[in-house]
Amino acid sequence: MVKNYLHKVQYYETDKMGVTHHSNYLRFMEEARVDFLEQIGYGYDRMEKEGLVSPVISVNVNYVRPTTFGDKLQIAVKVKNVTAVKLTIDYTMTCNGDVVCAATSTHCFVDKNSRPISLKRVNPQLFELLSSLAEAKDI
Amino acid sequence: MVKNYLHKVQYYETDKMGVTHHSNYLRFMEEARVDFLEQIGYGYDRMEKEGLVSPVISVNVNYVRPTTFGDKLQIAVKVKNVTAVKLTIDYTMTCNGDVVCAATSTHCFVDKNSRPISLKRVNPQLFELLSSLAEAKDI
Amino acid sequence: MVKNYLHKVQYYETDKMGVTHHSNYLRFMEEARVDFLEQIGYGYDRMEKEGLVSPVISVNVNYVRPTTFGDKLQIAVKVKNVTAVKLTIDYTMTCNGDVVCAATSTHCFVDKNSRPISLKRVNPQLFELLSSLAEAKDI
Amino acid sequence: MVKNYLHKVQYYETDKMGVTHHSNYLRFMEEARVDFLEQIGYGYDRMEKEGLVSPVISVNVNYVRPTTFGDKLQIAVKVKNVTAVKLTIDYTMTCNGDVVCAATSTHCFVDKNSRPISLKRVNPQLFELLSSLAEAKDI
Repeated sequence: MVKNYLHKVQYYETDKMGVTHHSNYLRFMEEARVDFLEQIGYGYDRMEKEGLVSPVISVNVNYVRPTTFGDKLQIAVKVKNVTAVKLTIDYTMTCNGDVVCAATSTHCFVDKNSRPISLKRVNPQLFELLSSLAEAKDI
Repeated sequence: MVKNYLHKVQYYETDKMGVTHHSNYLRFMEEARVDFLEQIGYGYDRMEKEGLVSPVISVNVNYVRPTTFGDKLQIAVKVKNVTAVKLTIDYTMTCNGDVVCAATSTHCFVDKNSRPISLKRVNPQLFELLSSLAEAKDI
Repeated sequence: MVKNYLHKVQYYETDKMGVTHHSNYLRFMEEARVDFLEQIGYGYDRMEKEGLVSPVISVNVNYVRPTTFGDKLQIAVKVKNVTAVKLTIDYTMTCNGDVVCAATSTHCFVDKNSRPISLKRVNPQLFELLSSLAEAKDI
Repeated sequence: MVKNYLHKVQYYETDKMGVTHHSNYLRFMEEARVDFLEQIGYGYDRMEKEGLVSPVISVNVNYVRPTTFGDKLQIAVKVKNVTAVKLTIDYTMTCNGDVVCAATSTHCFVDKNSRPISLKRVNPQLFELLSSLAEAKDI
């Protein structure tokens, strides 16, 4: 089982409204995604060695409640969907049991030269793994 | 007429892939939004004086093409929709004529104590102005 | 004994040279300082309750070796010196046993209204604690 | 004559104390330095083409007065000193006529493979230019 990722909000992540600046949640999503991939055996080093890069092509973030300095965010990461050319990931962030942010990021797959590739063809093992974890299967 | 906002990508906004880190586009949106409100006569000082805060409740960002250090982004800001309790803003970012990012942010209205308010009731003048600028009117 | 603070370098903390952007080390110093104060019993909540703020008035950073995404930085924090009106903190950051960054931050003490105060007079208990931890005593 | 660089403080650059977070001044220094080099004919593109990189090896920042969202910082950049292997740059930031921050950054020179080089030998033209601009000459 994949464990939630923990992010403790830093002082420099707050803004003059006294809350976590909304742009930082994209960074928390990245931290949690990297950790998730590491947990399922696809840490950055391995991805890089296999020549696989997975840039963000869109994000969708719903800010439910503000958080602030010192808050401990639990971030649950799930594969929502994976196709040969696209991966969608879901993030649910909670703090003291309350959902504070719900988000989605979508990624494509490219090689070292930034050319789009089919994950299914280039890395069938990772494709199968992500598919098995996906909530909605749609190949 | 409202002028486009110009953001020149800084070195510290790039990441090890050599491109502008995707989280920074939310910051560019904020810069452009602040500038837009200033241009229509509602700079931050005035908003604060009138006790009006407009936190982000969701964002939607589509990354169309990567940009990098030194790139000059033209950001066109438009009011997409405004209701008594919600404002939606559209952003189109271009670089050398190509769209590089298309995004939307949605905001609610709160008073100094973070209590939700009806913009239509509390600040009818700003509500009318935003409505007149909105592409889709939906009150 | 105070434990070292651990910071794992995030992807978004790198720049297009492929290394941790130098501005981020100031953020790591802040993270480590907050953690240090918490460990000695003066977490942010307590400081705030006691009406004590300690803004940075200067920093000095020596970048010894570059670090990058995934690197685990061990940050050792030490009180270098404390006087009635000033606190100087030392940071030594190592990665895999090598020093990567050595830095110092100096802080004054102000009350909630940003007026300078004497820590010795306003909070003798914290003053004594910091003095006892200081390498160089200079009152 | 080299013109001052202007940085307008952004909302996301503030923290919960209501002021510009101190780490951001290193970013303003970088912005101003890049602009300075461009003004004297050594923009990033040219530096890159000539295979010259100039990483930061130390910084020294004195925070004189806090600034906040909307403040317009005038940043004066000066070459303080240049030797065959090191460049020191001075920054004076003012806001409404008051000095808000005074800082220094020191840089070495490396080639594309991060090997230290002598600027005097590798790029005598730039070395002469920087020397002629330096306040203190020390070769």
